[in-house]
Amino acid sequence: MRTVRVGLLGCGVVGGGVVQLLEQHRADFEARLGATIEIAKIAERSEDKDRVTGVPREVVTTDVHEVVNFDGLDVLVEVMGGVHPAYECIKGALGRGVSVVTANKMLLAERGPELLAIARERGSDLAFEAAVGGGIPVIRVFRDSLASDSVEKLAGIVNGTCNFVLTRMRDDGASFAEALADAQARGYAEADPTLDVDGHDAAHKLVVLAMLAFGAEVDHAHVPTDGIRALEPVDHTFAARFGYAIKHLAIGRDRGTEIELRVHPALVRRETPLANVSGVLNAVALEGKALGPLLLSGRGAGALPTAVSVVADILDAAKGRLAGHQGSLVRGIRLAKRPLASMDSVTTRYYLRFPVRDEPGVLSTLTGKLGERGVSIEQMVQDGRADDGKPVQVVLTTHEAKERNIREALAAIEAQSFSLGPTRVLRIEQP
Amino acid sequence: MRTVRVGLLGCGVVGGGVVQLLEQHRADFEARLGATIEIAKIAERSEDKDRVTGVPREVVTTDVHEVVNFDGLDVLVEVMGGVHPAYECIKGALGRGVSVVTANKMLLAERGPELLAIARERGSDLAFEAAVGGGIPVIRVFRDSLASDSVEKLAGIVNGTCNFVLTRMRDDGASFAEALADAQARGYAEADPTLDVDGHDAAHKLVVLAMLAFGAEVDHAHVPTDGIRALEPVDHTFAARFGYAIKHLAIGRDRGTEIELRVHPALVRRETPLANVSGVLNAVALEGKALGPLLLSGRGAGALPTAVSVVADILDAAKGRLAGHQGSLVRGIRLAKRPLASMDSVTTRYYLRFPVRDEPGVLSTLTGKLGERGVSIEQMVQDGRADDGKPVQVVLTTHEAKERNIREALAAIEAQSFSLGPTRVLRIEQP
Repeated sequence: MRTVRVGLLGCGVVGGGVVQLLEQHRADFEARLGATIEIAKIAERSEDKDRVTGVPREVVTTDVHEVVNFDGLDVLVEVMGGVHPAYECIKGALGRGVSVVTANKMLLAERGPELLAIARERGSDLAFEAAVGGGIPVIRVFRDSLASDSVEKLAGIVNGTCNFVLTRMRDDGASFAEALADAQARGYAEADPTLDVDGHDAAHKLVVLAMLAFGAEVDHAHVPTDGIRALEPVDHTFAARFGYAIKHLAIGRDRGTEIELRVHPALVRRETPLANVSGVLNAVALEGKALGPLLLSGRGAGALPTAVSVVADILDAAKGRLAGHQGSLVRGIRLAKRPLASMDSVTTRYYLRFPVRDEPGVLSTLTGKLGERGVSIEQMVQDGRADDGKPVQVVLTTHEAKERNIREALAAIEAQSFSLGPTRVLRIEQP
Repeated sequence: MRTVRVGLLGCGVVGGGVVQLLEQHRADFEARLGATIEIAKIAERSEDKDRVTGVPREVVTTDVHEVVNFDGLDVLVEVMGGVHPAYECIKGALGRGVSVVTANKMLLAERGPELLAIARERGSDLAFEAAVGGGIPVIRVFRDSLASDSVEKLAGIVNGTCNFVLTRMRDDGASFAEALADAQARGYAEADPTLDVDGHDAAHKLVVLAMLAFGAEVDHAHVPTDGIRALEPVDHTFAARFGYAIKHLAIGRDRGTEIELRVHPALVRRETPLANVSGVLNAVALEGKALGPLLLSGRGAGALPTAVSVVADILDAAKGRLAGHQGSLVRGIRLAKRPLASMDSVTTRYYLRFPVRDEPGVLSTLTGKLGERGVSIEQMVQDGRADDGKPVQVVLTTHEAKERNIREALAAIEAQSFSLGPTRVLRIEQP
């Protein structure tokens, strides 16, 4: 029986899951492939090296080069994360015709187009199902199932930390700080949660999705990105009152020449499936020109869900090598540089919360300033009367409006003497 | 450039969509495959033959054998439906090593195991993404993405007609007959809706899913199947009052030796994504041992969504042929005959609606008879008092109970003099 030699960079939670699943399903995979998948070499940091179980001791090394340069290596699996040295390892492997499987969204967001170009040129495979949505087969769907369709727009809940925090805030009235502390206690958030709660991780994933969905090569640093730190429990209360849930979304839309990408919290109608994706679950909703709406939802992180995706990629790569037709996993991905649409040009509906002094004429000024910029109001509520001089909250939702007009109206409103602070602006999306 | 010759059986709405998508994406597919996909021959009924557009006249025939026996045929695409002559055509093609793509769930439910065995033996490919869930890539996910996982249970909304009718009943208080007439007027239901509203179509699809999810070969005629004809608007009202939506579900569960398959309307908690899959949309939810929960939702029917799935299968089959490794699409599907669990042995929660005469002692008898069989009650409501002698409705939900015990308790209750008709029994599921 032929052997497919796999090298593993990183053997933490995900890598450990990969070793476990490959071992568990050995007989099944042999029947499927007519070949054995062998873990030939594993690189792990020295302090973690002794923890790697399920493989012979001599398979484990602390030197990534021993894995990358392993003689007869078929598939390199990178699950250590970070841009360096993952980039150098993967680039080297692809250049030598080794198939690569990676879960590294940050690397793909930064260097994806370059690595895909190398793979295409060299006829190597590069698969990355686990980079977005953990165990959800979203990459495979974009790459294979939608081969004869064009994606018009997509919206994803792609960061489990954000979704858990927002769910806790909504369900239990917790503050952002309380909900985040809970997420950290449960292992759903890092000690330094910046990458997650400020939206950068979601932006990385959106850029990866945009490659597949729109064939778009964009700089992730230019994607308008907002996190969830500024949200207050009262926003969840008002959102629910209007029939919405607040979700942290990664949104993409093909606007012809330009491509619209943005990451921010948004209001989603409560009776949509996306609004009901709760806790650490992730989801991606898309609209195909031929296919119409499609939603995929599941675990966006975790050792085994992510490992299931990595192993599916390993099987694809192994099949390609055994048939001698490597490169088929990247051949359908064609990228072109696309200009990003400015936030000013975005058209959507809005939720606006104004902390104001309770005095006569406030509502007419508010609605007047919005009306002057062509922004029309759908619903409005004022939260009680404040007898103690504290601000009252005027909350309204608008019909479709241009972000630029909203911004101008808000500047005019916040210059009024009754305005007691910045307006909370949340977009209302129909994913 | 090499040519992949495709023969098409049936060129109605789906077949027409396939012709259209293959033509639209020709350049893209050539870049992907390094080969041209050519529609070599199309069979269509004589009365529809002149309607086939987008191909030279001489390509169209009324004789299926001209397609099946076409010299140098690579891929046979069957989208005409029905068991005969689809079965004979596909069997013949597989036996000669031709790759087959089909959307025919009825055929697969009846003859799937036999056809898969022929494909495996002969090294041919058999792909059927469009057979379940139309444009939703559910087959691919079970077949490829979950290669290293075991599915523990699944629940699907797999019949768009039922889902449309139930959504209309819930949202607009329509009766079953009104909602069905509306579905027929919109083209969402056949003139003879039996296959759909009585659950048989869903049972066919469940049997196909069970092959992939559980490796189970079962007789679809033995799957406990119930439709939606008997539901009344009042059931939607009570379900909503308890926080549920009524959905028509196809349910599968791996119980070790036995496999539990059943098709029936059920109550689903309103805040779950599945409960919010509305109108003609379909969805499949599954629970993987490693993966945890996964939900896929989208259009379950329609020319273009279904054609997108068929074309994705054609591309897979074409890739296999070009690389000379046909058969890889079926190699992972291994079937074994599995006994079906009896309905009596099913354990779940229940919604019970009793039409009763409004007289003293009814509630204590009801709860007593249930309690004697170990069925404990979670919630109970009585719908007003009837002064005019009409039945009142007592509705309750139970904690987990065995179906057998429920049936015994209901027999005892319906024998009472206060009972004014059969109990409406709906299962409450947590998909």
